[in-house]
Amino acid sequence: MRSDFRFFHQLRVRYSEVDAQGIVFNAHYLTYLDVAITEYFRYLGFDYKQLAQEGKMDMALVKTCLEFKAPAFFDEVLEIGVRVSNIGNKSYTVDFEIYKKDSGVLVLKGQTVYVNYNPTARTAEPVPDFFRAAVEKFDGLTTK
Amino acid sequence: MRSDFRFFHQLRVRYSEVDAQGIVFNAHYLTYLDVAITEYFRYLGFDYKQLAQEGKMDMALVKTCLEFKAPAFFDEVLEIGVRVSNIGNKSYTVDFEIYKKDSGVLVLKGQTVYVNYNPTARTAEPVPDFFRAAVEKFDGLTTK
Amino acid sequence: MRSDFRFFHQLRVRYSEVDAQGIVFNAHYLTYLDVAITEYFRYLGFDYKQLAQEGKMDMALVKTCLEFKAPAFFDEVLEIGVRVSNIGNKSYTVDFEIYKKDSGVLVLKGQTVYVNYNPTARTAEPVPDFFRAAVEKFDGLTTK
Amino acid sequence: MRSDFRFFHQLRVRYSEVDAQGIVFNAHYLTYLDVAITEYFRYLGFDYKQLAQEGKMDMALVKTCLEFKAPAFFDEVLEIGVRVSNIGNKSYTVDFEIYKKDSGVLVLKGQTVYVNYNPTARTAEPVPDFFRAAVEKFDGLTTK
Repeated sequence: MRSDFRFFHQLRVRYSEVDAQGIVFNAHYLTYLDVAITEYFRYLGFDYKQLAQEGKMDMALVKTCLEFKAPAFFDEVLEIGVRVSNIGNKSYTVDFEIYKKDSGVLVLKGQTVYVNYNPTARTAEPVPDFFRAAVEKFDGLTTK
Repeated sequence: MRSDFRFFHQLRVRYSEVDAQGIVFNAHYLTYLDVAITEYFRYLGFDYKQLAQEGKMDMALVKTCLEFKAPAFFDEVLEIGVRVSNIGNKSYTVDFEIYKKDSGVLVLKGQTVYVNYNPTARTAEPVPDFFRAAVEKFDGLTTK
Repeated sequence: MRSDFRFFHQLRVRYSEVDAQGIVFNAHYLTYLDVAITEYFRYLGFDYKQLAQEGKMDMALVKTCLEFKAPAFFDEVLEIGVRVSNIGNKSYTVDFEIYKKDSGVLVLKGQTVYVNYNPTARTAEPVPDFFRAAVEKFDGLTTK
Repeated sequence: MRSDFRFFHQLRVRYSEVDAQGIVFNAHYLTYLDVAITEYFRYLGFDYKQLAQEGKMDMALVKTCLEFKAPAFFDEVLEIGVRVSNIGNKSYTVDFEIYKKDSGVLVLKGQTVYVNYNPTARTAEPVPDFFRAAVEKFDGLTTK
């Protein structure tokens, strides 16, 4: 639920993202989640682009589950909650919830698992300590 | 696994669908699944567009889970297996698997739940018997 | 040039919008222009979505020319200048220029012609006086 | 006009590509043209992906003009004519026309200018002779 999230990213639905039913086409939600986690990284002080370029940290999506709760329409402002809910050795789990800003209606619940990825070697690597520490501090997550 | 599927739709990865890692960006897989189920409908003798326009049957995605098994690259030909694995009263479940045509490598496993949707009334409705019968005949599904 | 524009809309390049060359794929610029003109409308006090729904004003793109001046990269913030440069009887011309916020580098020059479109009748209609008046006031355009 | 083209690529409009007006959103036409020129290259015996990877030839879009003649709808099959109409020293011009397969209605006329691009050096380079020769042979183009 909404109070589980300390970080929200806001975006407005683009006309190009709605389909003939007049609602956001499902694939665009994965793009929204990608935008939101990039902003979550930025909020925590990490530049995702730079981390990837320096070979320090990149991410590869290994699994995602989405529940579509209500349609979103053109020009609506959405608030995307992002929370790291688990950090394993080489992977971490992120929970997302998307709400309509005006009405507070829940649009989507999502959970994705990312593997920490070395873009040069193209292999999975342990989640860096600096990321683990920042997430523990921000989201109050207990990892071991 | 591959032999679970009797229907495959083939498509080629577009340049616009790969990202800076040179691999298909995750959101496009939901578009691929949408293309594939439209073709599955066509193969079974249904014109999805016409069904929706006549108000006989439309679908709303309520849940999807995707597992990303291997990256796909620009210009690769993918084979998307589609199989209705369960039909409930007002919803049905579709299994998808995406393979590389050349190597047979598994790229993605997905499962989506659609609600049968009356586009005029914007409400869920029982899955029509003509669809149930066609799926039972084709995929050998036992529904009750 | 930049000083020709009184209105700019800012957006940040999404990861999903860059291609294997690491630069924004060309098609996304048309989406950026669409987002920017929606915001220009809003800035002038018009709700594009409501105008279309009420059948008062909609737009259909009839022509566009784009010059790609420099690539834009993931995570860059772009400033999109929008200016109505001509209003005819049933159509109007909009000029766009996209700059990088940080460096001021020109990324794209575009010009598009929209026909004013009655979404119910699916025919072109004279540009409404309220729009003409607002644009004349804002962009100092002399139309006749 | 249609008889100007010796090469056509066929594709079917995806549901994700139509907007709330029920017609193909304008930005997707640039993707269609990109798909079509890739297939034109393949037809002439060139593997665009391999050429780019080997650093022999890549392309950067520098200018495009599109005229939207008629809307295209979900599930329609489109035929995209591709023709190289001019080859300069470091750039070449490609003409496109998109027709509906069923009715022959003209949907879009486009012209794009590509610079031949060295992806390693990120600079423009003379159009390779093997490309010039192949195009001259196929499209009967006289270049000097």
